[in-house]
Amino acid sequence: MKNQSISKPLPLANVHIQDDFWSEYIRLVREVVIPYQWEALNDRVEGTEPSHAIQNFKIAAGLAQGEFYGMVFQDSDVAKWLEAVSYLLETKRDPDLEQLADEVIEIIAKAQQADGYLNTYFSLKEPDMKWMNLAECHELYCAGHLIEAAVAYYKATGKMKILDVACRLADCIDAVFGADVGKLHGYDGHQEIELALVKLYHATGKETYLSLSQYFLDERGTDPSFYEMEFERRNRKIHFGGLNMIYDRSYSQAHLPVRMQKTAEGHAVRVAYMCSGMADVAAEKDDQELLEACRSLWNNIVTKRMYITGAIGSMAHGEAFSLDYDLPNDTVYAETCASIGLIFFAQRMLNIEAKSEYADVMEQALYNTVISGMSRDGRQFFYVNPLEVWPDACDSNKNLKHVKSQRQGWFGCACCPPNIARLLASLGHYVYSKKEKTLYAHLYIGSQIEIELDGHLVSLLQQSELPWKGDVRFAITVEGEAKFNLALRIPNWCKAAEVRVNGITIQLSDAAALVDGYVHINRVWRSGDTIELNLPMTVNRMKGHPLLRETIGKVALQRGPIVYCMEEADNGANLHQIVIERKSQEQVQFDTKLLGGLQVLSIGAHKELADGWEDDLLYKVDEDLRTEPITATFIPYFAWANRGRGEMVVWVREN
Amino acid sequence: MKNQSISKPLPLANVHIQDDFWSEYIRLVREVVIPYQWEALNDRVEGTEPSHAIQNFKIAAGLAQGEFYGMVFQDSDVAKWLEAVSYLLETKRDPDLEQLADEVIEIIAKAQQADGYLNTYFSLKEPDMKWMNLAECHELYCAGHLIEAAVAYYKATGKMKILDVACRLADCIDAVFGADVGKLHGYDGHQEIELALVKLYHATGKETYLSLSQYFLDERGTDPSFYEMEFERRNRKIHFGGLNMIYDRSYSQAHLPVRMQKTAEGHAVRVAYMCSGMADVAAEKDDQELLEACRSLWNNIVTKRMYITGAIGSMAHGEAFSLDYDLPNDTVYAETCASIGLIFFAQRMLNIEAKSEYADVMEQALYNTVISGMSRDGRQFFYVNPLEVWPDACDSNKNLKHVKSQRQGWFGCACCPPNIARLLASLGHYVYSKKEKTLYAHLYIGSQIEIELDGHLVSLLQQSELPWKGDVRFAITVEGEAKFNLALRIPNWCKAAEVRVNGITIQLSDAAALVDGYVHINRVWRSGDTIELNLPMTVNRMKGHPLLRETIGKVALQRGPIVYCMEEADNGANLHQIVIERKSQEQVQFDTKLLGGLQVLSIGAHKELADGWEDDLLYKVDEDLRTEPITATFIPYFAWANRGRGEMVVWVREN
Repeated sequence: MKNQSISKPLPLANVHIQDDFWSEYIRLVREVVIPYQWEALNDRVEGTEPSHAIQNFKIAAGLAQGEFYGMVFQDSDVAKWLEAVSYLLETKRDPDLEQLADEVIEIIAKAQQADGYLNTYFSLKEPDMKWMNLAECHELYCAGHLIEAAVAYYKATGKMKILDVACRLADCIDAVFGADVGKLHGYDGHQEIELALVKLYHATGKETYLSLSQYFLDERGTDPSFYEMEFERRNRKIHFGGLNMIYDRSYSQAHLPVRMQKTAEGHAVRVAYMCSGMADVAAEKDDQELLEACRSLWNNIVTKRMYITGAIGSMAHGEAFSLDYDLPNDTVYAETCASIGLIFFAQRMLNIEAKSEYADVMEQALYNTVISGMSRDGRQFFYVNPLEVWPDACDSNKNLKHVKSQRQGWFGCACCPPNIARLLASLGHYVYSKKEKTLYAHLYIGSQIEIELDGHLVSLLQQSELPWKGDVRFAITVEGEAKFNLALRIPNWCKAAEVRVNGITIQLSDAAALVDGYVHINRVWRSGDTIELNLPMTVNRMKGHPLLRETIGKVALQRGPIVYCMEEADNGANLHQIVIERKSQEQVQFDTKLLGGLQVLSIGAHKELADGWEDDLLYKVDEDLRTEPITATFIPYFAWANRGRGEMVVWVREN
Repeated sequence: MKNQSISKPLPLANVHIQDDFWSEYIRLVREVVIPYQWEALNDRVEGTEPSHAIQNFKIAAGLAQGEFYGMVFQDSDVAKWLEAVSYLLETKRDPDLEQLADEVIEIIAKAQQADGYLNTYFSLKEPDMKWMNLAECHELYCAGHLIEAAVAYYKATGKMKILDVACRLADCIDAVFGADVGKLHGYDGHQEIELALVKLYHATGKETYLSLSQYFLDERGTDPSFYEMEFERRNRKIHFGGLNMIYDRSYSQAHLPVRMQKTAEGHAVRVAYMCSGMADVAAEKDDQELLEACRSLWNNIVTKRMYITGAIGSMAHGEAFSLDYDLPNDTVYAETCASIGLIFFAQRMLNIEAKSEYADVMEQALYNTVISGMSRDGRQFFYVNPLEVWPDACDSNKNLKHVKSQRQGWFGCACCPPNIARLLASLGHYVYSKKEKTLYAHLYIGSQIEIELDGHLVSLLQQSELPWKGDVRFAITVEGEAKFNLALRIPNWCKAAEVRVNGITIQLSDAAALVDGYVHINRVWRSGDTIELNLPMTVNRMKGHPLLRETIGKVALQRGPIVYCMEEADNGANLHQIVIERKSQEQVQFDTKLLGGLQVLSIGAHKELADGWEDDLLYKVDEDLRTEPITATFIPYFAWANRGRGEMVVWVREN
């Protein structure tokens, strides 16, 4: 009973991204990130923490000797790598990479136990503790990532081996968990299995997987607490000291049944993955109550708990949300994975109901936090994405010890780099979606797609100058003619969009034309038809909601989807001393030499100086600080920290 | 070889405080705090964490059965209570209180071991671990507090019993620690013994104690690390998990020999106590190198690492300093004890060199952070003294979990309440000091003193309207006539002081008259002579150094020594939305009904409103926020949080 009313992304094989901005990122993933991660997963990168993830599988498969090493969820790094590889293969054949993936799959398959169980931590290190510590130990999370990888690889290659592994694993889980008497009435501390099972259901058509996903969602947050009960059953054994995963129910969103949750609480990545799974099940089952819970959580996140960069998670402790309108810029967590999860959630909501607000957030997180997570050369990564950095304080003030002022080569807990890779490798999933005779264009990313519409094979070429200019052009090729509806998103950052079909302007004031932020162009299309979309970009000086303490009295510069920041490399140290002029006209210039080409903003400002202040006084009676006029330089936020150690700030005073 | 060039505080018995502002605090200490703390130490206060401190001594004394309970430094709470009681007794006889103290002293004396050792934690709980964990276990810290109490009680009553206990304890320590072969070459993780031993030296004249104090100071920070060596000796046993007291040498100021330390690092209370001990030894030994180290540390603290409230300690982790110019207002630590320690340090420096900068800081810490540490009724206490509080965030954002928006009845780690009590009970020590024929007036606190000067008994009556008005009047009574120098401090908050002797104005522009911030009036004095000091108070809008990120673009209001704040109780919620008018003239009014009488400031301001902002947008393109004109109300910072839960802020935007 697949729900036909939801919009579907196009297969990656049908989306050929050819974009001045994004093709380079995808090339980096293919040529740098995936090979680098392969080396990292095999412990061949010097100077970084060892991963041991492949070795763990080899040991579990009986192919090597040794002991498990790494985080309890180390397996998931291999799965995310394999998922990213699958997307690359679906996009473009690569026999060598496919052979490597097949070898990894062989190892994984051999590591699977006869009953379908597959988790190297428990197989090797605590075989008696399987399914005994759902709160802390990520068993179903790892399973979920393996299932996601399996579905992706199957779609890319048609090969069944890893899909069979995934099905046996899912069947094993289904035999253990569920409402039936004798089964465990539990759910994983870290959501992921839920959305993965829906993917497996899509790939196999087996309803059991969809039901199991719904079971996990609905079991969460019920009383009495499963985590407390299993804690007692395992004689109060704790895996992660310091955190309180057993009793702090909101950490794992187990404080309320998911349908009753109205605010995003606890670990931000978990919230985003949970919401993605909820949206999946709501869509498949046409479950309006669950959908309404998704909408509540979405609204809470995007209207009260999200940074302007599309980042989420206000505090390091628990990598978690805190409370409404609490968005500190410096002590922030803003994990790269959390914004990736937010994109997953946004995409699912968008496919349920085509409202541009979902795509706006998707774009906001993608162009800012997600690619901020990776260096411009694809070799280093951020886990935490602050909006304000003073490197000396990060070194000395323990409140900031999670904030790095430079990207790292790899992490002991390496969730973010492979997550970036799998998102970028599957970027084609986010550009368009199709529902019956409507083709939605959500993101403006140069690409060529082939798609069947109205019984015709339609080819659509998109040329986009985003994110630097708002000119987008579509050209249609179709055999004969086809009647379909092309729905183009008008981004929230543009207030003066123009759309021309074959040179004729469409009146966007027409309520029928602009629905929920999408211009619908429903007509008979022929080869040679063109659509021009002009999205004028101005430098928007953004203000935060008046209840946001950290942004009041300040502005952030945004142009198109790109949030800008000031860096010490351009503006010297002590960025807090800079006040931009309200009346100064921003200069916008593309600097081809800067980090592979970036648009740079210059704006009249003044800097409050320490000169003339006697250094033996920390405080003194008010007098005007000496100021000097300067030109403040802003670069895109995503490109910060590519020029050595230095300060950075997004929100800046204005007068 | 006592150094005669240092100025000395007057005995408490000779200082009778009669002050509209401070007498009430001293009454509270006598009538509320000390009795309340006695109940707390005996576990008779409901709804607060038990102390067990008296019970521990009883058990160790063989007077009760049971086990040790509490922090490893629980003994020090009893010592600080006894020290405060001693000051009260020295100020005013109280047979009942003295009898209670004698009973406590009996118990303490019985708890002492035959070799002089005295520490109930180790006697009862880990007898084999004595002197095995100096880094973490506060053995010498507790000894130091006992010694301070003993000296104070001896001075107050002339009774020897507790002084003998202290000497036997100090002798025991001297037998264990020192440079000699076979002795432990160590020093306590928490400084306190150093300054206590100098007090014991003053009380007994025994040079051993001074030498031992110097030994502890100079041993600190030498290589190899004593803490690492003892850690290995005790088979790597850890007392306090979470902190890293063994290897994080700067936490205990053991990163460098103390004479080489230029910046205040690590635990703020420890720094302040260490510096106090350093200043004591420098003064006694006329050790210029050590004094220079004191000056360096002092300068670093007051010119780069101190809040405008005289608070120190920028971060909760390690209750510690962080780095220069890092003074966050919300995640701040600012422990009450640390400001008390800073006053100890300031007083010692002031007595070495009579520069008003020391007294200014003493006053700043006293009138703001120290009395902020106690509720207006003397029943509740702050450990942490933030400069900006949003109570909801304190509940939900773990970065703020150490920040309480309301004072607490007692603490499991109850260092601060008895520290406030002993400081206030000994306030008379801080008002004046005497050096040969000079009498310094450091603080303007109404009082009558008797003092011998130039061979005559002089009585000096001070009448002061501080902190609300800057009028101070001195009247002299002397048999016959006496030639002496009266040195009056001109506070740094006053730029237009006037001094009149018998009605005749002294020209402060005369370099000879004003030396290092003190007006020296050297003449023959007769009964009936009067000095009038007029210190006009304006509302000073203070700015922070331009390198301070947390204060830039903001001002703090200060009038006289009092720093002001805005509270939700007067100004409604969302204090961050308030911008005070640069041109508005402040109204100053004494509100007799407010919390026992407080001066209140009113100032024209506007509030940026959330009205008209669509609540479904967290960020939007710049537009002027709607504002409404308001009158902002400021109350003295020390009086915040006496009217229920609410927001508070010291630094406020101005335009």
